[in-house]
Formats: sequence, C-alpha cells, structure tokens
Amino acid sequence: MTEATEALVIFTPSGKRGRFAPGTTVLAAARQLGVDLDSVCGGRGICSKCQITPGTGAFPKHGLTVAADALSGWNAVEERYKQKRGLAEGRRLGCQARIQGDVVIDVPPESQLHRQVIRKSASDRVMVMDPATRSYFVEVAEPSMDEPTGDFQRLCTALEQQWQVSGLAPDLHILRKLQPVLRKGEWKVTVAVNRGADGSVRIVDLWPGFREAPLCGLAIDLGSTTIAAHLCDLSDGRVLASSGVMNPQIRFGEDLMSRVSYAMMNPGGDVEMTRVVREAMNALAASLASEAGLTGADIVEAVVVCNPVMHHLLLGIDPVELGQAPFALASSGSLTLDAANLGLAALNPGARVYLLPLIAGHVGADAAAVALAEAPETSDDLVLIVDVGTNAEILLGDRRQVLACSSPTGPAFEGAQISAGQRAAPGAIERVEIDPLTKEPRFRVIGSDLWSTDPGFPEATAQTGITGICGSGIIEAVAEMRMAGIVDGSGLIGSAEQTGTDRCEPTGRTHAYLLHDASATGGPRISVTQGDIRAIQLAKSALYAGARLLMDEIGVDKVDRIVLAGAFGAHISPRHAMVLGMIPDAPLDKVSSAGNAAGTGARIALCSLAARAAIEATVQRIHKVETAIEPRFQEHFVAANAIPHATAPFPELAAVVTLPDVSFNSGGAGGEGNGRRRRRG
Amino acid sequence: MTEATEALVIFTPSGKRGRFAPGTTVLAAARQLGVDLDSVCGGRGICSKCQITPGTGAFPKHGLTVAADALSGWNAVEERYKQKRGLAEGRRLGCQARIQGDVVIDVPPESQLHRQVIRKSASDRVMVMDPATRSYFVEVAEPSMDEPTGDFQRLCTALEQQWQVSGLAPDLHILRKLQPVLRKGEWKVTVAVNRGADGSVRIVDLWPGFREAPLCGLAIDLGSTTIAAHLCDLSDGRVLASSGVMNPQIRFGEDLMSRVSYAMMNPGGDVEMTRVVREAMNALAASLASEAGLTGADIVEAVVVCNPVMHHLLLGIDPVELGQAPFALASSGSLTLDAANLGLAALNPGARVYLLPLIAGHVGADAAAVALAEAPETSDDLVLIVDVGTNAEILLGDRRQVLACSSPTGPAFEGAQISAGQRAAPGAIERVEIDPLTKEPRFRVIGSDLWSTDPGFPEATAQTGITGICGSGIIEAVAEMRMAGIVDGSGLIGSAEQTGTDRCEPTGRTHAYLLHDASATGGPRISVTQGDIRAIQLAKSALYAGARLLMDEIGVDKVDRIVLAGAFGAHISPRHAMVLGMIPDAPLDKVSSAGNAAGTGARIALCSLAARAAIEATVQRIHKVETAIEPRFQEHFVAANAIPHATAPFPELAAVVTLPDVSFNSGGAGGEGNGRRRRRG
Repeated sequence: MTEATEALVIFTPSGKRGRFAPGTTVLAAARQLGVDLDSVCGGRGICSKCQITPGTGAFPKHGLTVAADALSGWNAVEERYKQKRGLAEGRRLGCQARIQGDVVIDVPPESQLHRQVIRKSASDRVMVMDPATRSYFVEVAEPSMDEPTGDFQRLCTALEQQWQVSGLAPDLHILRKLQPVLRKGEWKVTVAVNRGADGSVRIVDLWPGFREAPLCGLAIDLGSTTIAAHLCDLSDGRVLASSGVMNPQIRFGEDLMSRVSYAMMNPGGDVEMTRVVREAMNALAASLASEAGLTGADIVEAVVVCNPVMHHLLLGIDPVELGQAPFALASSGSLTLDAANLGLAALNPGARVYLLPLIAGHVGADAAAVALAEAPETSDDLVLIVDVGTNAEILLGDRRQVLACSSPTGPAFEGAQISAGQRAAPGAIERVEIDPLTKEPRFRVIGSDLWSTDPGFPEATAQTGITGICGSGIIEAVAEMRMAGIVDGSGLIGSAEQTGTDRCEPTGRTHAYLLHDASATGGPRISVTQGDIRAIQLAKSALYAGARLLMDEIGVDKVDRIVLAGAFGAHISPRHAMVLGMIPDAPLDKVSSAGNAAGTGARIALCSLAARAAIEATVQRIHKVETAIEPRFQEHFVAANAIPHATAPFPELAAVVTLPDVSFNSGGAGGEGNGRRRRRG
Repeated sequence: MTEATEALVIFTPSGKRGRFAPGTTVLAAARQLGVDLDSVCGGRGICSKCQITPGTGAFPKHGLTVAADALSGWNAVEERYKQKRGLAEGRRLGCQARIQGDVVIDVPPESQLHRQVIRKSASDRVMVMDPATRSYFVEVAEPSMDEPTGDFQRLCTALEQQWQVSGLAPDLHILRKLQPVLRKGEWKVTVAVNRGADGSVRIVDLWPGFREAPLCGLAIDLGSTTIAAHLCDLSDGRVLASSGVMNPQIRFGEDLMSRVSYAMMNPGGDVEMTRVVREAMNALAASLASEAGLTGADIVEAVVVCNPVMHHLLLGIDPVELGQAPFALASSGSLTLDAANLGLAALNPGARVYLLPLIAGHVGADAAAVALAEAPETSDDLVLIVDVGTNAEILLGDRRQVLACSSPTGPAFEGAQISAGQRAAPGAIERVEIDPLTKEPRFRVIGSDLWSTDPGFPEATAQTGITGICGSGIIEAVAEMRMAGIVDGSGLIGSAEQTGTDRCEPTGRTHAYLLHDASATGGPRISVTQGDIRAIQLAKSALYAGARLLMDEIGVDKVDRIVLAGAFGAHISPRHAMVLGMIPDAPLDKVSSAGNAAGTGARIALCSLAARAAIEATVQRIHKVETAIEPRFQEHFVAANAIPHATAPFPELAAVVTLPDVSFNSGGAGGEGNGRRRRRG
C-alpha cells in the first residue's frame, strides 16, 4: 500500500493526525496515534465508550474536505447497538466505523479515557481520570487437550495481548471463581484490575460477559469524631452518594490521646477500637451502596485518609507509640491492602484499599489529603490551610516550602462536647444570625434553605425536626453571640440583665443563651451554654496556636490567604471564624472555605494514580512541626483563649467588624476553662 | 594507600585473590571478591557463620609465606564469642579478624552461604542451598522527632543498606508486631524474608535481637492416599523430622475421580474436602515440629507437590472441571501464597507456601517434583520414571524430549483396597519372600531389620506388632506368590491341592494365601486374598499401560533404564516390580529405586530458588500425554492384566527369573477382575 492510497485522518481536539489504509477502524487509528479514545470492550461494539463524531464538509483550517463516505456505512454490529441502546445524532462507534477517505474526527469529552473532571472547589482545579482500578473486557482462549495451561494463565495472556496488562498475581478468591465465570460468559469476561502503590497488579473481580455497571470506589475521611465517605463512579469520578456517621470509637475516648490511653490501660482495648471502627465503615459502605442502588460487591476500591492514630487503629496496630515522644509511626508510607484483611467485608471481597502516606507521628494522611486537594506546594502566595476536625491539620506554605502540623482541637468543632451538639445531618442547625439590637436569633437547619424566621420554615423542617447544632452552627452561634454583645472578650455569657435579653438564662453559676425552644410541642430546648463557649475557646485556641507556630517557623507575622477546610458537609464562614479568632487576622476576601478538603483529597486519590504518586512525592518534601513538644505552642494557646485574642490586634477584622466592648466578669464564674487539660484530639 | 602497602589475600577453595589495605576484615575482603562466605549477623561477631581457617607457613603453590601475624590478634568480641560458644582449633571469625599481611584463607564448607548438600539418592546429585526464605540480622535506626519516617520504612532501609534486600511489601501482621519487637530487641532484630515465585519480597516474621534457632520449612507430598512431609532446616537442608498421615479425603472417595464426583454430587462437598485436608496438614506440621523440638512458628515456609485434583482441593477450588475433558486447570503455574490464606494455621502466621507448577489437567506438581528430583531432561539415555501412588506419575525422556502422563492406578500400591493393607508405618510388612519349594513365607516389618524367621524376631517386633501389609509389601507378596507358583499368569490363587500348601485357604469361591497368623495370641491373620491380587492387577495394568503409551508416543519398544519412585518410606524391589509386570521389560541392573521422588523434589524446591526457576522452565517443555482419551491406553491396559503380561515376552526378566507355568483356572472363578471399572486414582 503506497502513501497515496492512504487517507488522512485528523483527530480533534488533540490535533493528532496520520495516514491510514482504507478499512482501518477509527479506534485502531486513534490507538496508533496515541489519541485518548476510551474502550472497555476492546472494539467489539458492546461498550460504546469509543463514540466519536465524524466531521462533514470543508475544514479550511486543515485544508481538507470530508466526503460523505469518508467513513464506512453502518455495519450490523453498529446498527444493532443503535437500535438496542441508541446513539446520539452524528455519533458513530469508533470500533466499527472504518476509514475510507480523508476525515476529521472529533473525540467528545465523555469518550476520552483520561477525561478531565472539573472539581467544584475554591480552586476549580481540573482532575484527570486515571483510576487505580479499571475494568477490561476480554475474550479468553478456550482450553484444549493440546494446550494444558490453566484458565488463569490464558486469562493473563488475554489481558496482556488485548490490553497490555501484565504482571498479575493470582489471588485465591479469583482462582476459586474463575472457572465458572469463564464458562458462564462463554469465555468472554469483564475483569476489574487494580494497580497498587507497591507496583502490584491484581484482579479484584471478574464477571461473565460484558459488565454494564460502572465500577465504584469509596473515598473515606476517617476522622476521630466523624467518618465521612463519598461513593464515586470510577469511570468519571461522579459522586453517587455521600454520607457520614459518628466514629463509634468515641465511647473509648473523645479525642485521640484518650483513645491511646484507653489502649494502654486496657489490654485488648486497641482490638476493640479496631473492631468498632471497621464495623462502622462497613455499615457506612453498605448504606452508601444501597442509597446509590448498588451492592457492596460493586465497590471495588476504597481510599482512606485519616490521622495516624485512626490509621493505626484501622490497621489493627496498637497506637501506644503515638502516645509518647518521639511519636514513632509503625509505617509512614502509603499502603495498598486487601479490604478483606482490613475486615471491610461490606466491600467487594477482592476490593483493595489505598491509604495515603502519613506525614509524621501527629500529622496524618488526612493532612496529606488536604495537601493533595489544596496543593499549597503550587501556590504563588503564602497560604495557610486549616482543616478543622477533632484533630486539626494545618499546612502553611507556597512553591518554596510547605510546613505541616496537627493541633489537638478536640471534637467541639464537630458538635461533640457541645450540650446541644450533633453531627452535620438533616435537622442540625448549621447557620446562625443574632440581631445585635434585639438579640433575637434566626437560624437555618440542614435540609432546608429557609431561615427560621421565613414563612414556611416550620413546614419545611417538619420532617427532620430541629435536633441540635452541628460544628459550623456552633461556630457561627458563638461568633454571633460575641458580635451581639451576649458573650464578652473573655468568653463569658452575660446575664439577662447584662445583655438585655431573656434568652440569657441562668444555669447554676453561669448563663446559657436560648437559641430555639420547641418544648411546647415536645421538642428540644437548644441553648448555647457557658460550657459550650469554653469548649469552643479551647478548640479555637489550639487551632490558632498551631497556625502561629508554623508562621513562627518560617518567620512571618501574617499570611497572604487562608483556606478553611472543615468536617463533612459543613462550610465554615470566614467572618465568623475570624471573629472567634480560630485563624490569624487576614483580609476577609482572602479567606475562603473549601469544605471537606481531606475528603476531596481522598476522592482525587481514588480517581487518579498520578495524584497518588504526586502526593507520595509531596509528602516527602513537607516539613512537619511537632506541636506537642514545642513550648511556644503553649504560649500561643493561652494568649488565644480570648475572643478573638488577648494580644493580637486583628486589624483586618477590626476594619469590617466592630466587636462590642463588654465584660461580664463577676469574679470567679468565668475562669474555669483555662486550666482544663488539653488533649490531642 | 599505594598497592605496595596492601596485603595479598588468597581464598581457598575458590582461588579468588585480591590486595587489601591492612585492617580490612576477612569478611569485607571476601565480599569484595565475591567469595561465598556466609554471615547472618552482618559482621557483628554474633552468628559465627563466617568462620574461616587462616593458613600458616609456606604456600609454594601461591608463592607466598604466611606470617604468624598475617591476621590481627583476637579482639574482645572474638574472645567473648570463643569463651561463650567455643571455636574449633584454628578457626577465626571472619568479621573480626583483620588482614595485616599476605595470607591464605580457607573457607570451610559449612561457612559457605551457598553450600552444597549431597542428596542421598540414586543419582547422588549435588544440591546448592539457595532457600527462598532466609534470615537477616539488622540494626534499625531509631526514630526521632526530626526523622518522622515509620519504623517499617527504617527497617526497609536497614535491610537494603545492610543486606541489599529491597522491594519489601508491608504485611499487616508484620506491621502489627513490628513496634514491640524493635523495642524489645533494642533496634536489633532478626528478619525472615521470603522471595516469591511472583517476584514478591515479603517479611515472614521478625524476632528481637539475634535469633539462634534455624528457620525451618516443610516439604509436603500431598498424595491422594498419603500426605508425607519432611521438616527441613533451611540453612543446610537437613531433614529434622519426617512423617506421613493418611489423606482424610479418602472417606469421600478412594481415588481422584471419586472425589471429583463427590464434589459434583454434593453441594459444598469440595469445601468439606478442602477443610479436612488442611486439618490433616496442620496436624502433620504440628507433630513434625514437636518431634524436632520446635513449634509451628518455627516453620516459615512450605513447599507442596500434589496432583491437580489435590492441588485444587487444597486451594479451595471446585475440581469439577478436572472430571471432564478437556480437564482444564484453574491455574497451571507455580504459586506463592500465604499459609494463612490456605488455612495452614499450624505454621508461622506469616509463612509462605510455594506450589510447584502443574503440567496438565491430569499431570500434576507431583510429576513436576519427580522431574525436579530425577532430571530426565539431563539424561543421556532414555529413562522411564514411574512414581507409584494412587495416581501414578510417569515420565519418559532424555536430553532431547521429556513426555509425561499420569495413570489411575488406584490406591492398592499404597496398601489401600488391600484386605490387610495399611500405610507404611512400624508394624507393616514391607518385604516378603516365599520359598518356591516349601511355599513357606518369611517377611520383614517396618521398624526391624530382622526376617520373620530370624531368631529374636518376635522380641524385635513385640513393640509394634505385625499389623498389616504396606504398599511395597503387597507388591513383593504378589510377585513372590507368582514366582512360587501360588498364583498363575492370569492372577488366580490356586487351592491347597493345586499349590501343595495349606496356606492356600478357601474363601468362598476363591482362595487366599496366609502370610502370618497371630490369632493364637490375639493378633491378626494376615492373608493375601484373590481380591488383593485383582486390585494389584488393576493397578499394575494401569501403570504399565501409561508407560507403554509414552513409549508409543516416541516410537520405542524398550527403554534404556527405569527409575521406580514410590510412596513415602517404601522402596520398591525392581525384580518384584518386573515379575508383576508393573513396568516394561528391561535389564534388571538398569532398574533402580528412588524412594519418594516427589517428596525429594519438594525438598529440593524448598532449599533452592534456582531449582524452582529450573523446574518452572522444564515444565514448559514437558510434552504431556492424556491417558483418559487415548484408545490405545485401554488396549495396553487389558493386555497388561496378566502377570507379568499376556503378550509381551519380557526376555530380560526371563533371563533371570523362570516363572512357573501353572494355571488354576477352574472356569469362572478368576474372571471377575477384568470388568471392574477403572478410575483415575
């Protein structure tokens, strides 16, 4: 065949071009040129992933005119597919349509194997799909008396020849089901293959024939207080369902150090904590699968991010070493493990679990995930990222360097240790405003967009009720109380007389502010108590002190911008965070909220092998700062107890918010907070 | 340092030589030259594996004279070692003795890492120690606040830097015990590392400090009827204990096809068979460890050889496909698996199990092991190797080609389906002779070297009793009965009148020959019945037919030599085997007995990674012949029913043995054997 008889084929948007012999399929041409055109069934006209749109008419830019018969007519396979499944106008199956003349072919975004997905986040960064677990449709050679190799070996040959997938290790659970599945599928099977951080290539599962259903994965943010998870479609990164549950380990200790102590004091205590967290993760996985109309067997992979204590307890490692200097980790690198070995029986029996690397003994895979989501190492300006949880992850850096620490804030920001606190779920108060004149509150609850003063609010919340305050709700409530003059700079709630509102009710020697009273209809009375204020003060002081410690480390007094990342489902209001003094002073328009950045990082790692490699490399370069042994941390902590701060002037905040200069100290009632023991959260 | 000041060092027996700066340790010099000098503790004067013998005086061959101070004097470490553990006269620790002048240094065999071990077998082949599981003593860097890597990562660094061991995958069970072990050993630990067939490198176990005890491995020959195992020292290949138990799957079917049928007819039947064989293997491992004064935790590896049905049932794979053409294997390649995943809980929790590759649907890893032990692919003359078991493995070949088949002999050769049959254990009759004139027998039992007619025999066997006949015993008994004229060519036992001995007793319509009568003292009456003869005839016909089929395949009428390999502990007498017609005619001096070749192959694989690679390559080249679908097999089988054979002349046998020309056919009583259903054994 001479070049003159070959047709010119130009692919858009890539611009890749080449000449091909007439009769070449579009898919074959694309593969030869390295055009990113998806295919799961390997060109058998089954999966329709290789859909393309041929151009028609003149393309002056390319100097060619596409004839009507530049591609072959519809063959039987393509016709059958169109009749059974439908094909959009203008679309063809790339594996069936053959090149007959010069042609321009467009590859639509959804036909790209490595399609880009825009994440809805502050940075709107693009994520390229490159999941560790992918499915392949293969035809396996049948056994014969003359060819005595095993079914597994012939499956491997098929994967190698048809998909260039090699190095598969045989797993017992696959060997056990292999023979019936191959025969049921008449030697055509869909195989899910996982690539591990350790270079391993493993078959997760296989199904007879072509499997329509997408492979799914779980991105899990395993926090001390909340376990949040997204169930994602591994073909396009879509979130199919999201949910969160309380971490049942709370009953062994609300913060991390309590749990380490529990393990030290109670033989077998770590085993018990391992068991309950795995149970909760299984329940969460099952409920997410059910919500998405799937089963646990559809979940072929999970990515877990968590702090070091959660990490060790999930793996069944006694966390005792994390309770004392030098806080040695059993393993710091990323891990790829069998879900079955982790007791995650709700997932596919062959599912693999990837755990992001840990940064240090107190700076975990959750911090790594935040770094993956927010990429401080690519920032031109100096960015402070605080991920608020029971243990806060704090990152500070730019292109030159990135520092990290964790700070034991305790669970108050997640609604725990709060009298009316609850996790972020429908019915929880998540937004609060207090009128500075009337001192009357209004609020919103998760599940409705209405404010409590809007018409129709009672009806809109009848289903969920108003059940408590979640983390973002308590932050706003305390900040609003400070701005409305109900709480003074030292954190004391004033009396009805001092504040001018009957909502300030005496509770023993202190006062509480009544946010919502449904007791007339048998509902709860939701107040913010003095104890709640103290818990928030402890938490925010720890957070602020951690951030300041990192700033000290690189010798700066202020940062260019701040990203507030928070627990599952809650977005923290920058203004309220600054009124509370959770974060250092900064221009308000330079403070953004990023939602659950750790969870987002987990999702990114779930969808991209390249992202895993990138964060594994980044973690090596992050400089960690240990708060537990740093005397300045304690100084910063004490000074940060006031709201917003005892000594720092917060000029940027003062420019936009004027805080009432009130003081309710009547001698003795307000001082109980400072002496409380700080614990790593 | 100029060359003139460096000392010449010559190692024997390797002859390797080089010049080294004064002060270099002998171990360092040896490593630099690639001299095979062992060390487990890495030069810390703990393990004493690096012992060497320095020469003294003149070495005209090398043209040098070794001065008295060619090596440094004893240092404190060496002195302490000698005082505590002792060192043979003339020996030094290579890691402590430093080179001070020209010297000749001998490395004794036991100090060679890859020491050669002579196997006591027909071929006396040399085996080079190269085990897949080895132990390494390492010092691990301590964690610090400034170096936040995990303990596992620092262990990996130590193994890489001190032993060039890399690519370790982290296993959960190791991560769980890692921290306490490192601290107990004060950052010095002994680590057992396994290299898998799949290229994996895994930590099997680790112990605080330097571990004195050798690592042990199990070589298991998992047969249909008998499970035989050797417990071996992985440092020198020594067999520490050997034992065998019945395969408890026998209760689901005596031969392979019965077990496949059981799995097909009974849902869950395969699961049950998997369970019982694993239980038996666990019990066997525990008893071997106990016999050697060890515990199961000392067994860090196992090698298993078995036929395909046993292989699949051990792995928990339903063997149904092996019951019908084309006899497709689930997996044919070698496997390296976790003992824990195979339910082998009696071994070390991190133990790895290597399974040799299977050759074909009916030709298993046991045949591969026989090939490994007997190496037909290196033979100059054409060798026939028959491994006698419930399923016989038959190999025929030389340097040019190797053929293999299996043949369903049934369990008679292992003493099953025999009226007084039992497995080879103390008390079992293993040798039989019958006087051709008097027709009186004498015999030997396992556990005593005396014949039953020798003085002292009753006393010598008082402990064990005389409990039955094992496989080799029944073969000799039937052959002797044929030679003594008690059994005719068709396999019929004559009556007392026909044979002239009252030991031929009527049993219904047939006769039995009384071998031993202890009924007067409450013991058993041990006879060879007509049914026993028929069982042996079926078995030997199948064996002969398989061998003939392979000979047909390469177009020969006779072979140059025959190797008889047999079940555990039993050596088959070549003369008796040929009288029976188990094997084709051949000069008797060209027939040798090799004991349990499959078990020997398992031992070789246990001791050598190179042997594993070699047999994996060899198996690819072995041409398998399928007996089950070959019509000529049936023809050969029928013709081989006579003793020794209906049509083949057996001239070599006739030259040394004259068989009585007797016939006891009284019409009807002797024909029942031929029609019995053959089953794959």
